[in-house]
Amino acid sequence: MARRYDTVSFLSDYGTADEFVGVVKSVIRELAPHATVIDLTHGIEPSDVRAGSLALARSVAYVAPGIVLAVVDPGVGTERRGVAVEVAGGEGVLVGPDNGLLAPAVAMAGGAERAVSLTAAAFQLESPGATFDGRDVFAPAAAHLCNGVDLAELGEPVDPDLLMPGVVPLPQTGDELVIAQVLWVDRFGNAQLNVSTEDLPEAFGDGVALRFGEPTDPTGGTTRVAERAETFADLGTGAVGLVVDSTGMLAVVMNQRSAADEVGLVAGDQVTQTPIDQDRDADAAIAPTPVRIERR
Amino acid sequence: MARRYDTVSFLSDYGTADEFVGVVKSVIRELAPHATVIDLTHGIEPSDVRAGSLALARSVAYVAPGIVLAVVDPGVGTERRGVAVEVAGGEGVLVGPDNGLLAPAVAMAGGAERAVSLTAAAFQLESPGATFDGRDVFAPAAAHLCNGVDLAELGEPVDPDLLMPGVVPLPQTGDELVIAQVLWVDRFGNAQLNVSTEDLPEAFGDGVALRFGEPTDPTGGTTRVAERAETFADLGTGAVGLVVDSTGMLAVVMNQRSAADEVGLVAGDQVTQTPIDQDRDADAAIAPTPVRIERR
Amino acid sequence: MARRYDTVSFLSDYGTADEFVGVVKSVIRELAPHATVIDLTHGIEPSDVRAGSLALARSVAYVAPGIVLAVVDPGVGTERRGVAVEVAGGEGVLVGPDNGLLAPAVAMAGGAERAVSLTAAAFQLESPGATFDGRDVFAPAAAHLCNGVDLAELGEPVDPDLLMPGVVPLPQTGDELVIAQVLWVDRFGNAQLNVSTEDLPEAFGDGVALRFGEPTDPTGGTTRVAERAETFADLGTGAVGLVVDSTGMLAVVMNQRSAADEVGLVAGDQVTQTPIDQDRDADAAIAPTPVRIERR
Repeated sequence: MARRYDTVSFLSDYGTADEFVGVVKSVIRELAPHATVIDLTHGIEPSDVRAGSLALARSVAYVAPGIVLAVVDPGVGTERRGVAVEVAGGEGVLVGPDNGLLAPAVAMAGGAERAVSLTAAAFQLESPGATFDGRDVFAPAAAHLCNGVDLAELGEPVDPDLLMPGVVPLPQTGDELVIAQVLWVDRFGNAQLNVSTEDLPEAFGDGVALRFGEPTDPTGGTTRVAERAETFADLGTGAVGLVVDSTGMLAVVMNQRSAADEVGLVAGDQVTQTPIDQDRDADAAIAPTPVRIERR
Repeated sequence: MARRYDTVSFLSDYGTADEFVGVVKSVIRELAPHATVIDLTHGIEPSDVRAGSLALARSVAYVAPGIVLAVVDPGVGTERRGVAVEVAGGEGVLVGPDNGLLAPAVAMAGGAERAVSLTAAAFQLESPGATFDGRDVFAPAAAHLCNGVDLAELGEPVDPDLLMPGVVPLPQTGDELVIAQVLWVDRFGNAQLNVSTEDLPEAFGDGVALRFGEPTDPTGGTTRVAERAETFADLGTGAVGLVVDSTGMLAVVMNQRSAADEVGLVAGDQVTQTPIDQDRDADAAIAPTPVRIERR
Repeated sequence: MARRYDTVSFLSDYGTADEFVGVVKSVIRELAPHATVIDLTHGIEPSDVRAGSLALARSVAYVAPGIVLAVVDPGVGTERRGVAVEVAGGEGVLVGPDNGLLAPAVAMAGGAERAVSLTAAAFQLESPGATFDGRDVFAPAAAHLCNGVDLAELGEPVDPDLLMPGVVPLPQTGDELVIAQVLWVDRFGNAQLNVSTEDLPEAFGDGVALRFGEPTDPTGGTTRVAERAETFADLGTGAVGLVVDSTGMLAVVMNQRSAADEVGLVAGDQVTQTPIDQDRDADAAIAPTPVRIERR
């Protein structure tokens, strides 16, 4: 008997308008009634593996020891593998499709130690169709792991180095230029960038010019001056700010308004950051209308 | 003392923007703290009894033994009965309004064995208004059943044969024609039909012509050729497919796109299926634009 | 050791598209694994403290004994306090920002008995940024209270009389006139007013004229005649009704339709009520088109 688990942290793109999430939880409830399921989110856009992988990576430092069940699975029913991946000396096992969804979270948790392909039919549900592996393959795997079934019983071993990697874009950084990408726009309209404070060169002070649009055209797009701030409420009305968000990344924000709506940002957009001189900053940062800052 | 239960599977049209679901769960938590509530879905469209009954029927084979609490209740406060219906030798009890919502799930679970009208005020909450029986009548009934109160104590016996039946539309089937109806459009835009593989006559091969619109006008509406496929990813870009979905019914689907949006389908729409010859199929199935197939 | 708790009732404006709610629950799960979290709602509009405070006040009579965790917090990261407020002889503790969000629920629960400002860093999580006190301050406080940590250990005592009050608008009432405000429009389009049956003067009979628009202009806005009714289904097609809702307040409703959409109401709108004579009522109440009732 392997270690037993009593928490399943569950993320998917199933939404909650249909009964998909409820059926997955019902399967876990029936097979492992002692387990508690914590919904991380089911609001990932349909088939958006990248968004799901980022949400999982942001969450993983906080999930309770146990199983992480993650399903964003446009390749369901094809030859893409379903996998279970053990991390942190067995403190956690991530279960889901091997399509890059799990990879950033696995890396955050210290890397894969053991992995299997979920091929053992004895630990799966029979199904009339091949379109709902969350119910038929992944939920049963999570439940059986909770019950003390060892990872190795769930299927063929997989070399952890051969799991599908995730794709996390890196910023391009120069002395006075950082080309960032929007990783995530949250409910409040905060646009998280793939840049932390340490990624900003010393030349950057309290004000940063943000250009939205293609970096290859230095005069294209729109530009806004953003204040560096500790928190939303430090920003004046209409001001765009750059704060360290709850995961340690820089985010483009406004106070009680959606910065993403204001400047037109969605996940995947590029944001070019350049330092501005401090004198201009004081005035420009509170300007509620877009301004164009010329390259100096 | 009757059997005790420790799971309540809960479906409603309450949505999650308001606190209705939370209040119902709070009532259960206070009366039966040992019970776990599994949310099937609360995203049924307001007052859409038919959609609720279908979602419940799709779920019921997977719910854990215990209570099923279902509330889509446009007649709340009127003389329509609230009922509790025992199925499967007491393994489950369905609780909700007697308006057809429970009927398909009861049938899937083998039929009603005992039923009562929820008339015993001692097992209900007092309320200032008559608009929230989920909180005042149904949640307390579910909780008391969890605590081992026998069904018979909750109210007057009802002849199970006199429960309100559900309305599930049957397809019309000819040798070379099946007139189906869309039962459900899910989050991914898959349009489930009221037709299983067994309902398709032998004349149907790997390609099927789907006509959307009224069957009485053989040349009206738009027609698309659909490939029969195992799973979404088997379909080419822009191709419409017909797959066996996770509940065993045929569904009109696309790969990583919403078929319902592409061809304009909503629940209740008619879809007329006719076989096509295999030679045309090979070319037509991957055509991304609508085509008109003449009756042959 | 103080009293232990095993239920956390959780309300926020986090939505469920992001992982905020899941991360808060994960923190509670890790620190207090015995506790069950009941989601009241996370659908409060971003930063709408008033709507959150009203939803909490409507729920509080039904929540199980334990912790109420409420987070609608536009001032996160500023000097606004985080607080824990004990009510009902220790049967409940409300945890959240001191911005008026908790106040109406505290009053409904009998008033604050003890309160602290959540200043004890030992009971908080370290964080890279100051934007997610739900995760870093409030969830740990709720979990530690569940574990039997006394309120007084969580921070500096606060005089309960100095907690931020809530703002609940009172109706203006004359002999033949009540000027009400819409407190809440629910998923079904019912528009709850800040008026109970007892607030309506004797002159009001079974029919009430509702004027939507500014009360200072007696002829402005649109007017509809509303039937007093027990429940939605008592209303004819197209008729607007006034029912006592599930919390004891009057609500503007229709049968299986959204009254708020029909007459154009949102939270905060004014509704002026005047009595009408009974003879006109019988005809007018079922009129599906807006009518203008002249002042008599």
